Amino acid sequence: MSNYSNLINEFIASLTIPKRPANLYDPIRYTLAQGGKRLRPELCLIACHTLGGNPKQALYPAVALELLHNFTLIHDDIMDQSELRRGQESVYKKWGSNTAILAGDTLLGLSYDLMLKHTTIGSNKCYSLMTTTFIQICEGQQMDMDFERRKVVPVEEYLEMIRLKTAVLLAACMKAGAISAHASPETQNAFYNFGINIGLAFQIQDDLLDVYSQTEKLGKTIGDDINTNKKTFLSTKAMELLQGEELAALKHYFTKIDFKRQEKFEGVKQLYDACHVKEAAMEQINGYYDKAFRILETLNLKADQTTELHEFTKRLMYREF
Amino acid sequence: MSNYSNLINEFIASLTIPKRPANLYDPIRYTLAQGGKRLRPELCLIACHTLGGNPKQALYPAVALELLHNFTLIHDDIMDQSELRRGQESVYKKWGSNTAILAGDTLLGLSYDLMLKHTTIGSNKCYSLMTTTFIQICEGQQMDMDFERRKVVPVEEYLEMIRLKTAVLLAACMKAGAISAHASPETQNAFYNFGINIGLAFQIQDDLLDVYSQTEKLGKTIGDDINTNKKTFLSTKAMELLQGEELAALKHYFTKIDFKRQEKFEGVKQLYDACHVKEAAMEQINGYYDKAFRILETLNLKADQTTELHEFTKRLMYREF
Repeated sequence: MSNYSNLINEFIASLTIPKRPANLYDPIRYTLAQGGKRLRPELCLIACHTLGGNPKQALYPAVALELLHNFTLIHDDIMDQSELRRGQESVYKKWGSNTAILAGDTLLGLSYDLMLKHTTIGSNKCYSLMTTTFIQICEGQQMDMDFERRKVVPVEEYLEMIRLKTAVLLAACMKAGAISAHASPETQNAFYNFGINIGLAFQIQDDLLDVYSQTEKLGKTIGDDINTNKKTFLSTKAMELLQGEELAALKHYFTKIDFKRQEKFEGVKQLYDACHVKEAAMEQINGYYDKAFRILETLNLKADQTTELHEFTKRLMYREF
Repeated sequence: MSNYSNLINEFIASLTIPKRPANLYDPIRYTLAQGGKRLRPELCLIACHTLGGNPKQALYPAVALELLHNFTLIHDDIMDQSELRRGQESVYKKWGSNTAILAGDTLLGLSYDLMLKHTTIGSNKCYSLMTTTFIQICEGQQMDMDFERRKVVPVEEYLEMIRLKTAVLLAACMKAGAISAHASPETQNAFYNFGINIGLAFQIQDDLLDVYSQTEKLGKTIGDDINTNKKTFLSTKAMELLQGEELAALKHYFTKIDFKRQEKFEGVKQLYDACHVKEAAMEQINGYYDKAFRILETLNLKADQTTELHEFTKRLMYREF
């Protein structure tokens, strides 16, 4: 547990969540108690510290963006009918759709409330950043749902979807950290673009873990993406890499729905292995990480200033859950 | 069509709603095209004008609050499984729950986006006002849903529910208008409280129209509240006014679900008439309007300054849909 995690967890624990109506706020308390990795607010504090700010300066936007993230998860779980979240029942499963809709809405309200309490010089920029990010995440989620009804999605479109659904939030965390450190607009933008690149890498790592995770720590069931025909980097890239009978076999797996789960998982994995899509994914991930750090280099920061960002990124890169 | 309506409608028509993803933005365009009475933004412009401001100063917050209102309707219709909205199919009915959840979320994002573009002196106050209001509306909606599972709800609790679910938004429109006119904090608060009172009156008028509307203009089916056992001022007040067999009969109607719609409507209406709950509701409405204008009098505005608020309020009072 890093110092940043302590700061964040203490701050979240100190939030006053009203008691009533209990049916509204209990699911919110439950969600916050589930915790999660809280990587996003940590990234925000690191960004602020990297630029010479006190990490505490970025606590309000960091946690506001974490609440925004949790709001999106609550609503996503309804739309995806996901029963598990962080190894526990999702709000949707535990309380039903209506509660999940309204508790999600309210959590978003609390997120704005927190951002509005962030009253330093750059706070107006942070509100605007949060709103733009929030709208983009909705657009990404819509693209993701649209993809479910399409047989073939080009990798490029898939990458645009995860840029919106996942990467912009990590980018916003980086930028909010830079804003809180009173950095120049150029630095803010460079930090934003750094976040986009590690965000893309982060999501592709997620796609990899669904198939190749060795651990039980994932907090969700392995093979879910394959089972639900979800478009991932692996599936969209494999469609481009495979040909002939193998391509037909992959399409067949992702079209029919009457396979046994384990049989389908093994079959798809075999095709993935045949076209070395795992290696293609790792290459893509490394490409994004390289690009992220090349962006950072343009800022001419001192080597010891970027140590924390390097370490954080390494943890993302080699994470197993 | 008043000048205010023209201003508002033109402003909404001029909003740039993105084209893609179409499945996300089409339902938003549909919702905005449905229009509705747009009383809330009108109230906001009137409030601003009443205090000597140019109504146009209040356009951004007025329309932001109208979008917030539309967002709550889209999500409420999912939770209530309402198929009709403004005489047309609800987003929920036309596109399903998932689209309605996400389009609602996005509309809220657009609402914040608009509010953030309102960059005059009081804009920080407007963001904060909008967020507080948004959270309170969620609390009110939760109380409303909680009431569905309760046999008897005291009138006082019902009034607290509609204060949150309905009145705070009209109050916020009044206050945002006052903020936009650069009024003093005392005037802002008086305008807010005026809004609370006409908001409560507005909702009770709504409850009345469900049972006693003479027109076909309602845009929803008459008797819906009775049919779905919804708590209203009429049902909660009648529970207090009726006794003995009549009270038992009313409870029976609101507990059992196997009545024929028309039979139940006539039966409940007969009991309402027996205890003169219509008159009690009208007295309550008049009480709130009187209180609203007594609050206004404390501000010592000139008589001709309050003409528009009087006329607007009269329209609310005698509206038939």
